Amino acid sequence: MNIPQSSFPRVVIIGGGFGGISLAKKLRNKEFQVVLLDKHNYHTFQPLLYQVSTGGLEPDSIAYPIRKVIHDFPNTYFRLAEVLAIDTDTNMVKTNIGALKFDYLVVATGSTTNFFGNKAIEANSMSMKSIPESLNLRSLILENFEQALLTDDLHEREALMNFVIVGGGPTGVELAGALAEIKKGILPKDYPDLDTRRAQINLVQGGDRILPAMSEIASKKAEQFLESLGVNVWKNVRVNDYDGMVATTNTDTVFRTATLVWAAGVQAVSVNGLDAKELLCRGNRLKVDEFHKVAGFEHVFALGDVAQMESELYPHGHPMMAQPAIQQGENLGKNLIRMSEDKSLIPFKYYDKGSMATVGRNKAVADLPKFKSQGIFAWFIWMFVHLYFLIGFRNRVVVFINWVYNYIKFDREARLIIRPFKKKYQVNS
Amino acid sequence: MNIPQSSFPRVVIIGGGFGGISLAKKLRNKEFQVVLLDKHNYHTFQPLLYQVSTGGLEPDSIAYPIRKVIHDFPNTYFRLAEVLAIDTDTNMVKTNIGALKFDYLVVATGSTTNFFGNKAIEANSMSMKSIPESLNLRSLILENFEQALLTDDLHEREALMNFVIVGGGPTGVELAGALAEIKKGILPKDYPDLDTRRAQINLVQGGDRILPAMSEIASKKAEQFLESLGVNVWKNVRVNDYDGMVATTNTDTVFRTATLVWAAGVQAVSVNGLDAKELLCRGNRLKVDEFHKVAGFEHVFALGDVAQMESELYPHGHPMMAQPAIQQGENLGKNLIRMSEDKSLIPFKYYDKGSMATVGRNKAVADLPKFKSQGIFAWFIWMFVHLYFLIGFRNRVVVFINWVYNYIKFDREARLIIRPFKKKYQVNS
Repeated sequence: MNIPQSSFPRVVIIGGGFGGISLAKKLRNKEFQVVLLDKHNYHTFQPLLYQVSTGGLEPDSIAYPIRKVIHDFPNTYFRLAEVLAIDTDTNMVKTNIGALKFDYLVVATGSTTNFFGNKAIEANSMSMKSIPESLNLRSLILENFEQALLTDDLHEREALMNFVIVGGGPTGVELAGALAEIKKGILPKDYPDLDTRRAQINLVQGGDRILPAMSEIASKKAEQFLESLGVNVWKNVRVNDYDGMVATTNTDTVFRTATLVWAAGVQAVSVNGLDAKELLCRGNRLKVDEFHKVAGFEHVFALGDVAQMESELYPHGHPMMAQPAIQQGENLGKNLIRMSEDKSLIPFKYYDKGSMATVGRNKAVADLPKFKSQGIFAWFIWMFVHLYFLIGFRNRVVVFINWVYNYIKFDREARLIIRPFKKKYQVNS
Repeated sequence: MNIPQSSFPRVVIIGGGFGGISLAKKLRNKEFQVVLLDKHNYHTFQPLLYQVSTGGLEPDSIAYPIRKVIHDFPNTYFRLAEVLAIDTDTNMVKTNIGALKFDYLVVATGSTTNFFGNKAIEANSMSMKSIPESLNLRSLILENFEQALLTDDLHEREALMNFVIVGGGPTGVELAGALAEIKKGILPKDYPDLDTRRAQINLVQGGDRILPAMSEIASKKAEQFLESLGVNVWKNVRVNDYDGMVATTNTDTVFRTATLVWAAGVQAVSVNGLDAKELLCRGNRLKVDEFHKVAGFEHVFALGDVAQMESELYPHGHPMMAQPAIQQGENLGKNLIRMSEDKSLIPFKYYDKGSMATVGRNKAVADLPKFKSQGIFAWFIWMFVHLYFLIGFRNRVVVFINWVYNYIKFDREARLIIRPFKKKYQVNS
């Protein structure tokens, strides 16, 4: 891998997401050699992926070159690499570009879609956990409308214009809202010879309320917002199977749809060599102690979505969102420095800054530490917070301009079908 | 294809480039039914493709949804379709989504890369005539640097850091200049552990000057600009072969390079059924008369790159650029309307607005009708003209902001490796 020898201990971080980047920042110019590995050369701002899928933002605006993040980090090395296995006996990381010895290992691999073993749904549905996947979904949505124009089979046309989003968490809610706005603002103009009123957006939630991780009022308001936009919200319905055209559920409800987006579950991305049964919790998360240490190791840590730190308040670990990952990265950084100074470690304490979801223009819900808000004020907070946490000044300006434009014009212009193959390809997400 | 019957004559336009769009605009709300076919759902602003390849702009900023162009064109239908053949006896266009009868046919298919039959170069080189191709080139450039970090073989590392651009026309010159700026402004920061001074950018021109279609002073100045940026300009050198690693030429010069961009020739995209030998000129262009009519037909026309209208001033047809296509589209539009009014047709007259090429910041050359300019003033004209001809207000704002940012920060942030496969794929360009 051509990483130079160093007299400082080497920290290998797997993953340039919120956790990995936050840790690398904390260790900048400290007495460590940091090696950051990722299979993409960019950091993805996952909370805005749904806007890429729906043409509101360009992919480059919500991603940021990792090499640019670490420009001023003389002790940090980036390698574009896929990790194949960890050997904790010899302290080696094996990757597709060679092996590397570590003194400290930090697993920050994040999460991926969980299909709960359903192969048919996995093969036929779309997911939205990476930029290639989001572009793929964007292309499929647009292609389906082009196709709908061509068919005289009403059943087929209906299926092409129907959207089923499985999962009523923030991703599902935000995607459903954005699709509803497209239906209203763009489809009638783009497809004047198609009765786009027949397009249906269905949000399917297994439990009895959407946004179950948020407050009751947030759930209730979000549902009202979705319904005011024309989204059909189905509660207590579980999609059991999907063959690419028909989705069956645990109820009598059957959906005919050419586009089923699976946002009903995530699981941690586990790493070979750290996937022994006793290390993993539900959803493949690595069990860590309050110092981010993977159980049984003194020099292997895990951060963010992949880590499960159980506490009284969070018996199943912290929510799989950006904030816990960022805060954990910072705390682990502090502790690595303290370790090198022979100081005692600081147990992690999560400061819950709240959670938010946006449904559409002027419509968002926010549960903040000091207050809850629903509607236009929450929507402004949502925008401000997302702009603030985006990496890069240029990205912020471009995203802001796109939002202003989309708001004024009721439009989303980034609706290009760009992909080499018509059918869903195996993305390297 | 589900195009409704109409009492007006049907004009089928193949291609949503500069020519096709310009014609559709002219026929807006006139007594024609216009059907626009394209295999992409977007119009590509080709003059800025090199900035996508080099990370300066996002692909969505230089493309524009065709359906949005024709929002207010009630007599215009768009279909995402690939044309398979034309039957001029029955007046039918056959496409992958069905057949369509036409009263008038307009071929505006544009041009593609011409490898002059060299299969090895075609298989191993990159070209830059579409957005997928440009993204592919961007990814390859970035991947090569990641790879260069890993190898200890100096020959290989050199090849990975060498760029050979074949063809000294505007595309080659602009790409070489942009790569030189990346070498200077970005590589040393992105790859501090690589000796990026060893990266070489070679512009190879078969003739004895670059920009041969421009004035002598423009050629000379552009060459000086390129050399001041560190580009090696090779004149009177022709690349004969390239196996993916070594390019041989008609001279002793041999290039070791993992990235060879072929910008040395274009050819018209011909259509089955209109490709009889007697219809075609050099480079597969369709011979048309001064009314854009394809020789031998009264109702088949060709526009832009694909059309060769020979005249005293332009014995080999007009230059394959945006301006002739736009002006021809307008004139053909006028003539179709005049035909329906039984008025005499207006022969096409090309108004040459001049030509330009940019090399780098503050460095461009412009041959305009009233004067010639080289340097910072030409560069401002170049920017203004490109912003002016970009379609869409949002695109203009986003491109402008990116340019300002790139100028101030000596940066280009859109440098994400996004593609499903590591190796060059068969793009549907």
